Amino acid sequence: MAGGTASAPWKPLLLKALDSNSHLKHSAFFQLATIGSNGRPANRTVVFRGFQENCDKIQINTDVRSSKIEDIKRCPFGEICWYFTDSWEQFRISGRIDIINGSNSDPLKLQQREKAWFASSPKSRLQYLGPTPGLPVINENPGAENQLDSSAGPVDAFCLLILDPEQVDYLNLKSNERLMFTSRPSANGCKVWIFEKINP
Amino acid sequence: MAGGTASAPWKPLLLKALDSNSHLKHSAFFQLATIGSNGRPANRTVVFRGFQENCDKIQINTDVRSSKIEDIKRCPFGEICWYFTDSWEQFRISGRIDIINGSNSDPLKLQQREKAWFASSPKSRLQYLGPTPGLPVINENPGAENQLDSSAGPVDAFCLLILDPEQVDYLNLKSNERLMFTSRPSANGCKVWIFEKINP
Repeated sequence: MAGGTASAPWKPLLLKALDSNSHLKHSAFFQLATIGSNGRPANRTVVFRGFQENCDKIQINTDVRSSKIEDIKRCPFGEICWYFTDSWEQFRISGRIDIINGSNSDPLKLQQREKAWFASSPKSRLQYLGPTPGLPVINENPGAENQLDSSAGPVDAFCLLILDPEQVDYLNLKSNERLMFTSRPSANGCKVWIFEKINP
Repeated sequence: MAGGTASAPWKPLLLKALDSNSHLKHSAFFQLATIGSNGRPANRTVVFRGFQENCDKIQINTDVRSSKIEDIKRCPFGEICWYFTDSWEQFRISGRIDIINGSNSDPLKLQQREKAWFASSPKSRLQYLGPTPGLPVINENPGAENQLDSSAGPVDAFCLLILDPEQVDYLNLKSNERLMFTSRPSANGCKVWIFEKINP
């Protein structure tokens, strides 16, 4: 089985998995692998913040002070591993990651960042006022006094990551089926996707 | 908070997390990141096959024909990201990976591989008789006729991976506490661990 298409043919599969696992809070969590500044793999759980409007790019919020930012600046590629614990489906989504922080020069990207900020909960916004992630604790009760006006825009530490999928490896452990979706750029700047059934 | 110790101080935390999440089949699953042969991060779900006897090394079974073997041969480092969905705990375990396949010259390692083979279920053993993972499907009903004597030893495709932890980043999302465990080799060939409370 193989085919070619301009819209991302794996997206309906992913939307269906999200829907059938939506009763589980952790179904919005996936693992993002990058290459660390020491040249070794790095891997952490992050939260799916939706697709970029009308496309298949995946949004992640992060703290600009976290080490994954340094990782991505050195090597702008990542692989998401997203395992759905109820439907036994795995999506490995590989692609280039764009970092959008407050100093981005593109007004459209700054707008996307602002939108992502207001889409996140007041509680998760407060995290970005806390001390630098990964540094030793010096104050046992940090940021307890921090407050944020709900209408205030993104703080400096807030960063939007956008992963642009280039390859998606889909595995269904119930049916024991695996599909490999690969893309190539087409003449008009869009991507053309092909897919193939491969051995699990 | 910081301390130094010869036994791995993160292991009791991990054993406790395994215990408190043991009602969930997927609590034995974690994501293993490696560096792919294209130099980009690779990430996939694998199954925890226990610790190596009397130590803190982590065992994973895999097919010698899977692409992660090529990855690890080129760059023998990996990072496990293990998120426990019930207790909201994350362990990021980084270390060097040893590949033990049937042609290993160390009789002790071959014994470990044999032990891992017999510890796995007859159904999972059959997988190693299937077609090469990741290659296009050419036979829609592969290996349906495969059978294995339950007393037969490991087949050629069966491979044991052993990850030797060098650093463990522990995050508890309920208490919002994070601990960084780092090791260094000591004079007697063992590891000495130190740990420190860091900002989440």
